[in-house]
Amino acid sequence: MTDLPTLAQVAAEAGVSQATASRVLTGTVRVSTSTRRQVYDAMSRLGYVRHRAPRGAPARRAAGGVAVVVCDHLHRLFSDPYYARFLSASGDVLAELGLPMMVMTVPPADPGTLPALAAGADGVLLIAARKQHPLAITLSTSGIPVRGIGRPPDDVKVPYADVDNRDGARQAAEHLLLGGRRSIGVIAGPPTLPAAQDRLEGFVTTLRQAGMDDVPVAYGDFGLPSGTHAMQWLLRRCPGLDAVFAASDLMAAGALNALARAGRRVPDDVAVIGFDDSPLARRAVPALTTVRQPVEELAILATRLLLSGTVSVNPILPAELVVRASA
Amino acid sequence: MTDLPTLAQVAAEAGVSQATASRVLTGTVRVSTSTRRQVYDAMSRLGYVRHRAPRGAPARRAAGGVAVVVCDHLHRLFSDPYYARFLSASGDVLAELGLPMMVMTVPPADPGTLPALAAGADGVLLIAARKQHPLAITLSTSGIPVRGIGRPPDDVKVPYADVDNRDGARQAAEHLLLGGRRSIGVIAGPPTLPAAQDRLEGFVTTLRQAGMDDVPVAYGDFGLPSGTHAMQWLLRRCPGLDAVFAASDLMAAGALNALARAGRRVPDDVAVIGFDDSPLARRAVPALTTVRQPVEELAILATRLLLSGTVSVNPILPAELVVRASA
Repeated sequence: MTDLPTLAQVAAEAGVSQATASRVLTGTVRVSTSTRRQVYDAMSRLGYVRHRAPRGAPARRAAGGVAVVVCDHLHRLFSDPYYARFLSASGDVLAELGLPMMVMTVPPADPGTLPALAAGADGVLLIAARKQHPLAITLSTSGIPVRGIGRPPDDVKVPYADVDNRDGARQAAEHLLLGGRRSIGVIAGPPTLPAAQDRLEGFVTTLRQAGMDDVPVAYGDFGLPSGTHAMQWLLRRCPGLDAVFAASDLMAAGALNALARAGRRVPDDVAVIGFDDSPLARRAVPALTTVRQPVEELAILATRLLLSGTVSVNPILPAELVVRASA
Repeated sequence: MTDLPTLAQVAAEAGVSQATASRVLTGTVRVSTSTRRQVYDAMSRLGYVRHRAPRGAPARRAAGGVAVVVCDHLHRLFSDPYYARFLSASGDVLAELGLPMMVMTVPPADPGTLPALAAGADGVLLIAARKQHPLAITLSTSGIPVRGIGRPPDDVKVPYADVDNRDGARQAAEHLLLGGRRSIGVIAGPPTLPAAQDRLEGFVTTLRQAGMDDVPVAYGDFGLPSGTHAMQWLLRRCPGLDAVFAASDLMAAGALNALARAGRRVPDDVAVIGFDDSPLARRAVPALTTVRQPVEELAILATRLLLSGTVSVNPILPAELVVRASA
């Protein structure tokens, strides 16, 4: 942990000044997306982590391993490729350091049990914590090092690493507007989940700026069947819909199913954009236009930040529209 | 935990005597497969677990939850449907009792770290422990309640629950022999894994009894690519092969790929049988004839046995050939 690169090396690798690199990390001043991307790419290439301890002080060495607490139902751990991508990348970082990873799912309404975790782990990666989630709130006040994956809700005060969900959704909205779509719906994720809120707000705000005020929104749980149901609801409410943005690729795939059953062609009649760029996006028919989340980079960075004891940095990694056949 | 059914109720439900039900549980006397199946079905329906404590004494109540230690690589946790099936079923049992489940992968050669686990968990389900696996050996002597999933290797002394791998493989061999196949190969699992040994021995012994002494064997790691490579090796060694038994559905699917590339028709030229009856078996082209492992029943039974503190019973659940198109 002591041979990690310095901020100066990151700045040099990124081709920016050290002051700019520092601004990206602390998030205090607005920096362009492309600059942020350069800096995070450089951090990722170099394996940079910012230490809370003064330089020269020995880095804290974790021994008991990391617990990953996934605030979701157990079956979704295996059905949503997001988790496999995240856990594999995080597990690789830990394995290189000889540290074990424990994974635990805590369904959203479940109070969960902190003691078993607290006893064993040196730190916790907390994924998908929702508003008023009892275990997440307990964890955030426990004194155990915690790093949120995705911006945590306001009642859970922990440092975090996130993807720029708002900006990803903005790119999706602009792509649909540029494509001439004028009756656009949203299949949003759970409203208690900040990442879902951010995607919805980023999308709706962009449409509003283009003069579209009445955007129909259906809510799902990020899973495939919920996308099908939400699409059916949207089609009943707005039969003239010509585009839909789903906050996950699984829900977008579910929407494709509903559209096929309703006899709508994609993208001719209805354009569909997903979110994630999961392996599913490429396999879907037609292949999904989607917002790429750098899940692996997020996992690597968050795991390193947790292990280094850094608490002052909440990096937001850029999201990027990937255009395929569906929109 | 105190309203669980009695052995007498299980015997009544299964339509056998209490003595027979007891024999099935203790495994001391040979009982027919169909009777064993009746008794385990009844146990499963009734939620029976055998208590180590005398009847009437309060059952031990776990509080810290169960750690599932999977002796495999992290990426296989998500790529082999066996684990999703097992963990989902076990997690359901624990969730009903309000107990958390932690999952941890320990690659086969990794010494692993016991302390983090030991501090938190009330019991450990140990999946796929191999011979000379350091963590498995440490766990087995730690005093923490452990239940092996699959017969553990000889150097790991823990109670276990298993599937009758030998008998499943026997059924596969008999099906191929009855179908007139005369040049039969095996794609076996890792030789250090007892389940893989049992499948190989059950299969080869049956062929030997039919007069086939020289059975070519290639080894894989249960994953799909290893099945492809093993099949290519078998075809090079025995170009006249007319059947193959793979010790997992993933390896059987890999074998199908290799056979298609080699221009062999399945089942006309080469019959293929897998093992697991994973969701993949139905989706394969042609659909896989396979040996069904009752993974969910195994998970439920093993989790209940672990929680009840039972150590004197090592149940072996029946496996069953499912005939589809590939053999």
